[in-house]
Amino acid sequence: MQFLLELVGILTNYVRKTFDRSTKVLDFHHPHQLLEGMEGFNLELSDQPESLEQILVDCRDTLKYGVRTGHPRFFNQLSTGLDIIGLAGEWLTSTANTNMFTYEIAPVFVLMEQLTLKKMREMIGWPSGEGDGIFSPGGAISNMYSVMIARYKYFPEVKTKGMSAAPRLVLFTSEHSHYSIKKAGAALGFGSENVVLLSTDERGRVIPADLEAKILDVKQKGYHPLFVNATAGSTVYGAFDPINEIADICEKYDMWLHVDGAWGGGLLMSRKHRHKFSGVERANSVTWNPHKMMGVPLQCSAILVREKGILAGCNSMCAGYLFQPDKQYDVSYDTGDKAIQCGRHVDIFKFWLMWKAKGTIGFEQHIDKCLDLSQYLYDKIRNRQGYEMVFQGVPQHTNVCFWYIPPSLRGLEHNSEEYREKLHKVAPKIKAMMMESGTTMVGYQPQGQKVNFFRMVVSNPAALQSDIDFLIDEIERLGHDL
Amino acid sequence: MQFLLELVGILTNYVRKTFDRSTKVLDFHHPHQLLEGMEGFNLELSDQPESLEQILVDCRDTLKYGVRTGHPRFFNQLSTGLDIIGLAGEWLTSTANTNMFTYEIAPVFVLMEQLTLKKMREMIGWPSGEGDGIFSPGGAISNMYSVMIARYKYFPEVKTKGMSAAPRLVLFTSEHSHYSIKKAGAALGFGSENVVLLSTDERGRVIPADLEAKILDVKQKGYHPLFVNATAGSTVYGAFDPINEIADICEKYDMWLHVDGAWGGGLLMSRKHRHKFSGVERANSVTWNPHKMMGVPLQCSAILVREKGILAGCNSMCAGYLFQPDKQYDVSYDTGDKAIQCGRHVDIFKFWLMWKAKGTIGFEQHIDKCLDLSQYLYDKIRNRQGYEMVFQGVPQHTNVCFWYIPPSLRGLEHNSEEYREKLHKVAPKIKAMMMESGTTMVGYQPQGQKVNFFRMVVSNPAALQSDIDFLIDEIERLGHDL
Repeated sequence: MQFLLELVGILTNYVRKTFDRSTKVLDFHHPHQLLEGMEGFNLELSDQPESLEQILVDCRDTLKYGVRTGHPRFFNQLSTGLDIIGLAGEWLTSTANTNMFTYEIAPVFVLMEQLTLKKMREMIGWPSGEGDGIFSPGGAISNMYSVMIARYKYFPEVKTKGMSAAPRLVLFTSEHSHYSIKKAGAALGFGSENVVLLSTDERGRVIPADLEAKILDVKQKGYHPLFVNATAGSTVYGAFDPINEIADICEKYDMWLHVDGAWGGGLLMSRKHRHKFSGVERANSVTWNPHKMMGVPLQCSAILVREKGILAGCNSMCAGYLFQPDKQYDVSYDTGDKAIQCGRHVDIFKFWLMWKAKGTIGFEQHIDKCLDLSQYLYDKIRNRQGYEMVFQGVPQHTNVCFWYIPPSLRGLEHNSEEYREKLHKVAPKIKAMMMESGTTMVGYQPQGQKVNFFRMVVSNPAALQSDIDFLIDEIERLGHDL
Repeated sequence: MQFLLELVGILTNYVRKTFDRSTKVLDFHHPHQLLEGMEGFNLELSDQPESLEQILVDCRDTLKYGVRTGHPRFFNQLSTGLDIIGLAGEWLTSTANTNMFTYEIAPVFVLMEQLTLKKMREMIGWPSGEGDGIFSPGGAISNMYSVMIARYKYFPEVKTKGMSAAPRLVLFTSEHSHYSIKKAGAALGFGSENVVLLSTDERGRVIPADLEAKILDVKQKGYHPLFVNATAGSTVYGAFDPINEIADICEKYDMWLHVDGAWGGGLLMSRKHRHKFSGVERANSVTWNPHKMMGVPLQCSAILVREKGILAGCNSMCAGYLFQPDKQYDVSYDTGDKAIQCGRHVDIFKFWLMWKAKGTIGFEQHIDKCLDLSQYLYDKIRNRQGYEMVFQGVPQHTNVCFWYIPPSLRGLEHNSEEYREKLHKVAPKIKAMMMESGTTMVGYQPQGQKVNFFRMVVSNPAALQSDIDFLIDEIERLGHDL
């Protein structure tokens, strides 16, 4: 117990410093440096035990050489920030150390999951919040669920007979969508070639006419168009596909409509921004990751399904040792057989607790504030010297995509190969310097024909306008002489 | 911060009471009772925030109506116990709140995972601990990985072209094996009918001759035998399939051999018991869940693979926004593209920390002690009046399977339908009474033609001989008058 309290001292100290802007975001070292053992921090495991004192030192070192994802200037991923209530929820969850598969050993958590999923379905707009759902270990697995249940809905015999019982099935998703749809296609036996990528407009939104043309093409080849994924908040551009128009096409061709709102889902909680989800109530399934835009600690992802019972139909195998029918309580609360997992971590409690503590309006305020901040960034850089926006127009989500053009490049012809080659190297160089100086972190990537650009996202509740100002200054400071 | 410290007070108090045998294991309530709101414990979410004071009350209530899985008399699942170092590891993990996909944001954890997986591969016996692996969200997903990579090894074109690019593929696993193999077969597009169940001896171990006969049968039908799962520690009987004999057959027919050591894996750390894994070094892949027998908090499961690079080959999709090739560090440390997940929870730290604190010998002592305790139980009941063993012989793992026969049934003809029907109801009744009195918890289930019996397992480091004695007394107290 004394040990645990000493650890808590280390952790609360870490949290305090994380919120202090004078603390570095990270203290970068290369893999070989850490493997060689920094100042006695030895990662190797051995036969003999270490003292509790040494264990505390190990804990301190682990934090020291890590990355402060809760730091107000950490903008590197979609999941940032450190919510204290969410953290408390995780600490309680790990103390309770139980498993979601049965009501028997997780009565409270099972009910919390059920009630929370219902609230989420209400926000999607399904009548009375009816339907189904489950928390999964992340958005990729949630998206995988959507493909599985779509297949089960139209070709239930695949569960027993395999893919040979169905015609060649085709999935459709935007070229800007998350790679997990393609991964699911490969894993589940469709084949990645049967995941057709849809063209987008310059803002990264699916062009409905392209979807319809590609469906017709697939049908003409004699294949079966099964599933469309509409992305609500794409990873790089933050684009929202036009759900209503896609839903019309799905209805016309009798296809499953999934909405991947892993990143955008939080906007459903904002009266100001939820219109971007217009039509989501027509979806058959929705992925929504509270661990992204809503600041819930990792992992917390939900797959929500309009049709009740289909998750169990798709996945149940009725294991006798877990799901005994002759228990003394209502065994419909044993939800584990719906999952592709057996044991399942309790991801619900931290989210439930944050919802209690903030209320729906607290999440709304957080979302609105993050979108305001990204609009602030957009307004600040769109006409600023040395910046070029990757696409025009106010961001739909908090993603702001831009190039920083160092003075040495500004005179070059923008369409020349030399310019492109040089510009491609700017973001990685600035990023490397950021990490080495430890001041801030922001993501970059190429996209299609576009060379490396920065993708700024805001999901951290601790971020302020001054942090956005800092980021701009820092990019200019580090990039000016490139 | 004050709030966090108050929560820690609640949690440490909970932990203290959990280890106190006078505390109940659970305070059972039916779903409708909890939903109606016990003494003001309101599970519903609302628009408005609650006070921090109320949040602390909610935390207390959540624990109060839950199940103490760390209690020395909780024997209900394969995962039991509450290791304080492991708990500390989880608290630190949630404070660091990062993601395993890149070295960039999880440098220390990525290296810990790599070193720990290598140690585990060394224990399996692969030369120099070479190979591959990843931590996944549980044994079912780890087993799913094994099926995916087996398919990729023999039919890599399935990744792009789908199952139609391969002949009809068949998986083999024991009728006693975990249901996740069948789930994987259904999910990945093989179809559950193409998961052939193997017959076992009376101890629940696969009969190699049956495997070979079934392979020949499948080949004769023109299908392709792809994969055999050998279980090392079956869920109900704790049986270890004969790996060497199965490996011989896999070699003969050029098939993938997976060993599901989700439950048994810990025994690899015991010099006394690791012989039960004899031949495991011949496996192509191994599932091993430290969150079961080794007492690591949930979730902590590894899939280990002999061939290096095959996980990435099978799963990579090279997402540009995460796995940029032009980073400043050695990007071979960005391991996220090996996974079917994108975001991935940090499951390694608590395990690494426990290994540091206990050393390999600490795990060995824990394993040996648990197996001794189950032998103690076995010796105590095998000839005791009112007990009948489900199978004869010393348990291979900590699973002890038995019927308790109340006095009213002892005079009945054991082969009669009346006896079977009555006996089938005994374990559920005793279990219900256990839960209502909150004194202890142990699992039960039917298996094949065998009516409901108790499955006792020991993985809790806090359990003592006196707790085994207590369990026996409690079963007799509650069951005597049935």
